[in-house]
Amino acid sequence: MEEKTIYVAGLGLIGASLALGIKRGHPDYKVIGYNRSDKSREVALERGIVDEATSDFKEFAPLADIIILAVPIKQTIDFIKILANLDLKENVIITDAGSTKFEIVKAAEHYLKDKPIQFAGSHPMAGSHKSGAIAADVNLFENAYYIFSPSSLTKADTIPALQDLLSGLHARYVEIDAAEHDQVTSQISHFPHIIASSLMEQAGDFSESHEMTKHFAAGGFRDMTRIAESEPGMWTSILLTNSQAVLDRIENFKQRLDGISDLIKAKDEDAIWEFFNRGRQIRKNMEIHKRAGVDSFYDLYVDVPDEENVILEILELLRGTSLVNIRINEENREDINGILQISFKNERDLKRAEGLIRKHTNYRVYLN
Amino acid sequence: MEEKTIYVAGLGLIGASLALGIKRGHPDYKVIGYNRSDKSREVALERGIVDEATSDFKEFAPLADIIILAVPIKQTIDFIKILANLDLKENVIITDAGSTKFEIVKAAEHYLKDKPIQFAGSHPMAGSHKSGAIAADVNLFENAYYIFSPSSLTKADTIPALQDLLSGLHARYVEIDAAEHDQVTSQISHFPHIIASSLMEQAGDFSESHEMTKHFAAGGFRDMTRIAESEPGMWTSILLTNSQAVLDRIENFKQRLDGISDLIKAKDEDAIWEFFNRGRQIRKNMEIHKRAGVDSFYDLYVDVPDEENVILEILELLRGTSLVNIRINEENREDINGILQISFKNERDLKRAEGLIRKHTNYRVYLN
Repeated sequence: MEEKTIYVAGLGLIGASLALGIKRGHPDYKVIGYNRSDKSREVALERGIVDEATSDFKEFAPLADIIILAVPIKQTIDFIKILANLDLKENVIITDAGSTKFEIVKAAEHYLKDKPIQFAGSHPMAGSHKSGAIAADVNLFENAYYIFSPSSLTKADTIPALQDLLSGLHARYVEIDAAEHDQVTSQISHFPHIIASSLMEQAGDFSESHEMTKHFAAGGFRDMTRIAESEPGMWTSILLTNSQAVLDRIENFKQRLDGISDLIKAKDEDAIWEFFNRGRQIRKNMEIHKRAGVDSFYDLYVDVPDEENVILEILELLRGTSLVNIRINEENREDINGILQISFKNERDLKRAEGLIRKHTNYRVYLN
Repeated sequence: MEEKTIYVAGLGLIGASLALGIKRGHPDYKVIGYNRSDKSREVALERGIVDEATSDFKEFAPLADIIILAVPIKQTIDFIKILANLDLKENVIITDAGSTKFEIVKAAEHYLKDKPIQFAGSHPMAGSHKSGAIAADVNLFENAYYIFSPSSLTKADTIPALQDLLSGLHARYVEIDAAEHDQVTSQISHFPHIIASSLMEQAGDFSESHEMTKHFAAGGFRDMTRIAESEPGMWTSILLTNSQAVLDRIENFKQRLDGISDLIKAKDEDAIWEFFNRGRQIRKNMEIHKRAGVDSFYDLYVDVPDEENVILEILELLRGTSLVNIRINEENREDINGILQISFKNERDLKRAEGLIRKHTNYRVYLN
């Protein structure tokens, strides 16, 4: 087994977690790292996340068999330009970890053209509200989608080699064209972030003249605005490198708002009902109820009183059963609330849990 | 103590849960009910939710000291018209349970004018994804806001009498002008439902030409569209009886979308950053992090591996500590995910839990 040298440039949460996953899958590989600021570099060395570390990006690049650029999007493109002028190993594989793919792949195809370099884009679809090497987690990408976007510099074995490198992440690897990646993520991630932030600002402004706004905001509103607390810098870069797709989603959404406005003005009861019903049916049929589009969710609902140890009591009954998810919503119960929701991986676990709770408690139990 | 007769018209989830709460607070009162369909009427009688029940709304109205109209908004207004022509008890108090208040209060003021009738609007701000008397729950409104909207037919002791009647709900009683109620709820509930359904339809349409849309939809998207699964009929009535406020929110939101579109087109990095940062700061400062605007939330985050019994293990450590909320998000970890989030009522419980988990486990623990 050949020992390879892997260069992870950027030892923030993503880069450091990738490094841990690489070491888990390939303990014999040498992982070297770059980080501009001292803190994450020192943490990464102390925790053994990397074997060596530098604050000079150019220093380690010539040593690497594979280079992973795990820095912000703009810096990723800058580093691609720098790599174009370095004396790298023959057939080095370069990839990135950015949230948009088209601009990065385009930059690689442009600047690395006609060199003995392989390039494929990457988007590990995971994250956390934490940051830095201090938060690195070998399980961060477990069961998450890990996207590869090929380029004109991708050879037949480029992506298989990267997938082998990253096998220790235990992610789900998918290959998708860079432009299509950016289209899909504009719809399910980038534009929703704009909605969440806009709704939050709208409610904030509205609360200045309507004081109870802040008090009555219920579970639905809370859930819809959660992602408005994401880190602004990352989302700014995403919008700037996926402008056209995001602008299209905004225009399309405005037309939908105009449509429902017209129905309200016309007091068209049937058509408004149909509008809400369509959204409901689409969501019910969409794989959003399934676990990341692969396994199904099997949900159990239990009415629980507001008492100590109730959840503990229920989980003790379910000892040995894997839960996919658990949540209780009781703050200002406007929507699906006041209920302990437990999701299971399969119907067998669901039925078993239902039987146990019915047998041993008086709580009311529902299956969807 | 005078024995009163309370007439609950509509024995669905809300009406039947109100009836249970009234009986808890006033076991000596007689609670009689109306329901058109047999099912909930029979369940309500069997479970002792009401003492007597009718399928003829007019039949019991003259017997009541207090009448609660717990039917859909349009039917509430129809019933107000019917009550105007019945021979009711002198000084009977009438209230409702509708999600919008202005149209209902206006109807009461119009049709019940110059009669010996007291009227105040009500909005018990709770619900469930379940329905019918079968789902009735005496704790449904516990700690929820219960709104009273006065009318020209509200006397000094009308709302105190209703509040006394409903004391067994253990709700939080707030008085707010009907028009203002509808303004506030348009912002934090009615318009967000339009957004959720529109986003769901947009993604559904988009997925027809972009297949991976349904697979990549992550936690943020899932949370943002959850309320799109609400019952269409109720939300249709809400839009139709709060049209102007909702239309205003739509227009205002479209302007905000135009604003961010302009920033994207101008590639104005600083202004886009400021847009995201403003939403983030508003949400952090808004009382959305506090429990329904009264108590604070104190959140603890624990990195948990995907193993059986981990949550049980943690809850065993926390035995005797009241949790406000618990949730784990691990499906497709795009945002704040992969983490067990536990919310406590006060800082003391939070600090105690943090100490216990740190002492007895190796899991990483974070306080926001």
